[in-house]
Formats: sequence, C-alpha cells, structure tokens
Amino acid sequence: MSTTTTTTESFHGPAIVSRDAARDGGWKIEDVHLRPIKDDELVIQVVASGICHTDLVFGDAPAGSSSLVQYPKVLGHEGKMKNTGLWNCTPEQLLTLPSPQTGSGYVKAVGSAVTVASLGDPVLLSFASCQNCLVCKKGRPSHCANFNALNFFGSPVFHTSTPSSTSSSNPDITALFFGQSSFASLTIVHASSVVNVKGLIKNDDELKLLAPLGCGIQTGSGTVMNVAQPSPTDSIAIFGLGGVGMSAIMAAKIRGCKIIIGVDRVASRLKLAKELGATHAIDTSAFAAGDLSALVTAIREITPENLGADIVIDTTGVMPLVQAGIEAAAPLGRIIQVGTPPEGGSVAIQAMAFMCGGKQYIGAVEGHAVPEKYVPEMIRWWREGKFPVEKFIKFFEAGEFMQGVKEMKDGSCLKPVVVW
Amino acid sequence: MSTTTTTTESFHGPAIVSRDAARDGGWKIEDVHLRPIKDDELVIQVVASGICHTDLVFGDAPAGSSSLVQYPKVLGHEGKMKNTGLWNCTPEQLLTLPSPQTGSGYVKAVGSAVTVASLGDPVLLSFASCQNCLVCKKGRPSHCANFNALNFFGSPVFHTSTPSSTSSSNPDITALFFGQSSFASLTIVHASSVVNVKGLIKNDDELKLLAPLGCGIQTGSGTVMNVAQPSPTDSIAIFGLGGVGMSAIMAAKIRGCKIIIGVDRVASRLKLAKELGATHAIDTSAFAAGDLSALVTAIREITPENLGADIVIDTTGVMPLVQAGIEAAAPLGRIIQVGTPPEGGSVAIQAMAFMCGGKQYIGAVEGHAVPEKYVPEMIRWWREGKFPVEKFIKFFEAGEFMQGVKEMKDGSCLKPVVVW
Repeated sequence: MSTTTTTTESFHGPAIVSRDAARDGGWKIEDVHLRPIKDDELVIQVVASGICHTDLVFGDAPAGSSSLVQYPKVLGHEGKMKNTGLWNCTPEQLLTLPSPQTGSGYVKAVGSAVTVASLGDPVLLSFASCQNCLVCKKGRPSHCANFNALNFFGSPVFHTSTPSSTSSSNPDITALFFGQSSFASLTIVHASSVVNVKGLIKNDDELKLLAPLGCGIQTGSGTVMNVAQPSPTDSIAIFGLGGVGMSAIMAAKIRGCKIIIGVDRVASRLKLAKELGATHAIDTSAFAAGDLSALVTAIREITPENLGADIVIDTTGVMPLVQAGIEAAAPLGRIIQVGTPPEGGSVAIQAMAFMCGGKQYIGAVEGHAVPEKYVPEMIRWWREGKFPVEKFIKFFEAGEFMQGVKEMKDGSCLKPVVVW
Repeated sequence: MSTTTTTTESFHGPAIVSRDAARDGGWKIEDVHLRPIKDDELVIQVVASGICHTDLVFGDAPAGSSSLVQYPKVLGHEGKMKNTGLWNCTPEQLLTLPSPQTGSGYVKAVGSAVTVASLGDPVLLSFASCQNCLVCKKGRPSHCANFNALNFFGSPVFHTSTPSSTSSSNPDITALFFGQSSFASLTIVHASSVVNVKGLIKNDDELKLLAPLGCGIQTGSGTVMNVAQPSPTDSIAIFGLGGVGMSAIMAAKIRGCKIIIGVDRVASRLKLAKELGATHAIDTSAFAAGDLSALVTAIREITPENLGADIVIDTTGVMPLVQAGIEAAAPLGRIIQVGTPPEGGSVAIQAMAFMCGGKQYIGAVEGHAVPEKYVPEMIRWWREGKFPVEKFIKFFEAGEFMQGVKEMKDGSCLKPVVVW
C-alpha cells in the first residue's frame, strides 16, 4: 500500500512550520519537501486555509510542556486534542473562541487507490475517516472508531532539508493533522478528507472564500441541520458566537426557527448574530461574573410559557455554561455539546431533574456531517444567499499569518483565512 | 368547577391506608368514604392495582422523617418523589427493584366535564397530565409542565369517619397520587389518568392481569418503542430486570433487535429475561463488588467490533451503573435514564470523551407514552402473544397485600398485583 504513483519528492513549497509556541515566535514560513504519497493519499496545491483555535491551542504550547507537544510540525488543523493539558481557559476566554476549520485547493497528484478526485480538480478539505469501521460503514464518519488516530495524532510528512539528501531519509516534520495539514502551499492529504467540488465552485475566489466550510462552519450548521433538526416552533439558543456559533445561527434561520437566541459577551458578535438570523441576543457581559442563573432566567423569559429553550447548542466547551444550558432547556429539551471541553472537564447532571424534564445531553462532532454530501449543500445555501459566510471571514496573505493569529486571539476577526 | 354530578358521598369501601411506615405495620385495610368529585374526576371501582416500589419507598418512611411524609394516606401510586431523602439504596438493592405501576377497574361515577369514559366502562389507569400546558399541547403528556404537582403531591380525597359526620367536614386522607391512588376498592381519579378499554378487554380476568400496564410496563416498553426506537441491527442493553426492565426486553424483541443484553444480579431474573427475549445475560453478582469496568468489558465483548451497545436503558437509578452504561455505549450510543435516581444523585459525564463518542444521555418518564394511544398497543401485543406480562405478575387478595409487599421486597415477585 505504499506504492507511489507519481514522483512527489520533487514537490516542495512554503509552509507554516511550528517549531515552538506561537507566543514565542515559533511559527515561521519555511520551504518544505513532501515525502512520497501512499495509495490512499493526494497532493493538494493549497489555495487557502483557515486558522483555527484548535491550531492555536496546540501550536501555542511551550516545547516540553507535554509529551504530546512535539515540534516541528505543520498546522492547518492541528491536533493531539486529548491529554494535552492545554484547555484551561476561563469562561470569558472561551466565549470568544473562533472555530475549527480546514483548507481548499487543487489536486496535484493522486495515489493509486484514490477515486474521489483527479489531477486538477478543485477540492475542499474536511476531517478524515477510516471508512472501514462499523461506524463508517453505517455512514457516520464523524464518529469513526479511528477518528482520533486519523485526525489528531499526525504522522511524518515533510522534510526540512533539500531533496537530494531526503530521498533516503525519514521525513522530519509531522503533519496530516485532520487528515490534511493545510498550512502548506503543497500538502499531502488523506483521500477521505477530500470533497471534490468540480462543477460546484466557479473560480479561485470562491475556492478561497469557501475554504473553511469543511470544519467549523460544517460543525455549527450541521449540528442544527443534522443533529437538532429543529422545527420552526422550536426555540434554539446558541452559546458562543465564533464561526461555529454564527454558522449555527444561519442554519437555524434556514430551518425557519422563530426564536433564535445568540449568547456571547462581545457586542460586535451579538450584532452580527442578529444580522445573520438571531431573533434575540443575550450579552453575558451584563451579568455579574459567574452568575449563570441570570443567563438561565434570560433564556426562559424569551421562551413560550417561560419553559426554556427546546435546543441549546454549546460551542464554548465551558462546563459551567453547559450546566446552565441544561438548566435553561425546556422539558424534552436537547443540549448539544459542540465546543471542545477542557481536559478532564465534566458535566455534573442532576439525574432526577434531568430525567423528569425528559432532557437530552448530546455529544456531536462535525455536525454529524458526511462531508461529501454536506459540503455541497452548504455551497448551495451560500449561492442562494442564505449562508453568507463572507460576513465573518477575513483573508491574510501567508506571510501575514501572525496578524491573522493576533486578530483571532483578540477577537476582532472571527475566521481568519490564510491565502497561499 | 366543583359541581358534583352524582352523590358520591355514599361511596365507601376498603382501602389500604398508610398510617405509618409499612415496616412498622402502619399499612392497614380500613373503610374509607369518598369526598364529592370535581367536574374532571371519576369514581372507579378498582378491580386490581399493582404494588410499586415507589409506593413502598414513600409508604415505608417513618412518620416525622420528612415534612413531606404525612400519614394517613392511600397509596397505589404513592408520591412526593422529590426531596424526601429516601433514595439512599445501594447498587445491590436497586438492581432488584420492582417497578412503578397502576390500577384497573370500572367507572362508577363521572364528573360533568369528563368525556373519556361513561358509567360502567372498563378502564386502565395511568399517570395524570394537565392537558393544558405547552408540553401537553405538543402531545407529550409524560413531561407535562405540571407533572409533579398532579402525580406526586396528592390532595385530600377520603374521609376516615362515617358519612353522616363527613358531609360538612374536609377529607382527612390524602390520595390522588399518580392521578388515582388505586389502593382502594373505590377511588377518585383524574380524567387524564383514565384509558378507556371498552372493546379491548374481554373480561375481569383480563382487567386484573393488565392492571399494571399503565405505568412500569408502559415505562419499560415505551422507552424502547418511543424513545430508543431501535433497528434490528442495534444492540441494546437493559440494566435492571424488574417489571420495567422485563418490559423493555419484550419490546426490544418485538423490534427485532439481534442483540438484547439483560443485566442483573439475580439469576432467576436473568433466566426469565432470556425467556422473554434477551439474547445475552450478564450476571453482575459474578463481578467483584463495585467493579463496573467488568460490566463495561462484558458488554463490549458481546457487541460487534467490541464497540459497545448502541442503546443502554438504565432502570435502576444507580448512578455508578449509569456511568458504566455511558462508558459501555458505542459511538453514537444512547443511554436512557428510566430508573429513579437517588435524591441529589448526579451523573458526572466526561465531556470530551462523551462528545467525541457522539453519545447521548436521555431522560425519559413513562416511556414518552401517550397512554390513550400506547396502552391499546400493549394490549394488542399481549393478545398476539408477544408481550407475556403474565410471566412476571403475581396476584394477592387485598387482605394479603403485606405478603405482596414482602415478596416484592425479597425479590421473589417482580410485579405483585392486589385484587379487590
């Protein structure tokens, strides 16, 4: 299975290599060389790739802070999500999180077993799945039994040194996070990460703009469309208005929900949420610190008979907010966990009240989407003007990626996209 | 709304009056007199009524042990489920719990606003709902916003003294628990508790046998039919094999599930579960005390690719078992809370693993059943031989009710039914 179908050793180009924590200036653009591809891999000429908070968290950890934090690596969906001990943010920090995302580009080489795309096809990238376990065979790749291994652990992909000296050596840069590592102008991706958008995308500008569809935007909207599936009479509250939350808001509007409540602590985000479809905005910065009962009350007061929200989607991963969401849910209400929880974080559910309320706490990854089916749907909504992702995406030239990181960190940009 | 349509003061008969904890001999048969009925109430001549563990728990608390424990009262679905501090059983005790249930009988009087049944109609009794809140109007009465008030708090119904002296006095016995209080030969019930079975039930013997359908049996089977809705390829594990668990087993067999795992610590129950449809039985008494990882491993080993059970139904309310159920669930697996948790009991869900697993923790009461629709379905399955409730029901004459209590407590009888 390691036969090469094309001489990919000649491929090389700039990539954002993470040699140390971003905060220490450890992210730099370097020229890297690709190892040969395997039968189920492709080489992609990357057009654009999103900066994701997950990338930041894992690329911003000091060297040596954990056995799982290894430098150098190429981000563009960075991983090792579990057991890193890096998730100790405060509720205030997390409510302003941007969301995970991926890249787009054109196929430059295909492994012998690849059928999803041919040379020259435009593609959007998403998560990887094994397509072989029982869960994948049931058509649920977002919960593939091998998801973590394929998406979060990475494997050696790039060489730092010159081609002449690398042909016989092992790659020394780890990549393939999220099946792709799209923070490189030329990268190797797993076939299962590829969504062929030939015939769906008209030009490079569209490919740039829609680059982040396959992760955070898919996660937020897919959670509404595939997991919650609300009816127009359902009230829905979205906690956290980063890219994931905004995408959930847009999807709730497409579903025709009459009550869509955006919850955040940043006024500009609440304003944008209302532009995108939120009927109500709750500004948690108005509440006393830690007073989550005020949030519960505010949600109940908006909903019919003060029963609470039928659907709560947490995109923050902040455990106290999740607890408040459970409290604020109506009888038979569903609370959907989308935001990445802190390491070791747990939700203490009061079982009697939860049972009597007929509530449901639901974990969801990537909006339960099957990317090859769901990405084209998002593109259609976008083309119909129902899914204006351009309202929260901002482009940065590759050389300016640190500015994108800065704006994401300070909250001024929801979704920075690096253009190669 | 308090107009009487018939002179119900003349109605009186024997009832099991709980004047003190059952353990202290506080339950005795006494002659009691009915107060006048309200417009939305009926008088029922009770044929049979189940003894329920909920009755036991609340009728077995020492007088003065809680402000919510008041004697005298008439059980036959006893209540005040919340805040009583009575739910401190060990896992071992709870795995042998019998399940809640209700009564059956004939209509003897109807309030002016009652349309569900007429004089002489045979009825099965179930829980009460307000039929007026948003949840009821959505057709989900088992999670009625007024469920607790209608089912668990009771109100004065019976007089202990003679008719001549009671006409001008207030009733001194609290009843109407679960909208009925069926441990009386003549009782007052709320219209919403009544399922008219005219044309569905052929004779008194059937009415006796099917008396407990409207609660525990509905809860167990309804959780499978209405909440889990498994496909034949779904593996399902049932924790606790009392009446609720056995009913879930029967329903899973009706749904055609190929893997039905019964979990209990009593060999006779595991044997019966296999007769009723379980394909696998796990005897927790074989594990070291408290070693729930052995249970998780045992479930995984039974399921395809060792992924775990697609559905776990907990009928025990034992929090450590629920935690094990979450662990033992497959990716995208659902863990359904049916057993009553201890007061203040909470489930600590490890949010990251839960989310990545796409799991769902679901609270359910009465199997999300709408009794007027669901009870006839159970009768049809029973008549077709698919729902042999007679295999775990045992009858006791009213005067022998303490024997029923004893056999329920020692686990030798799953579902004692008192015949009037």
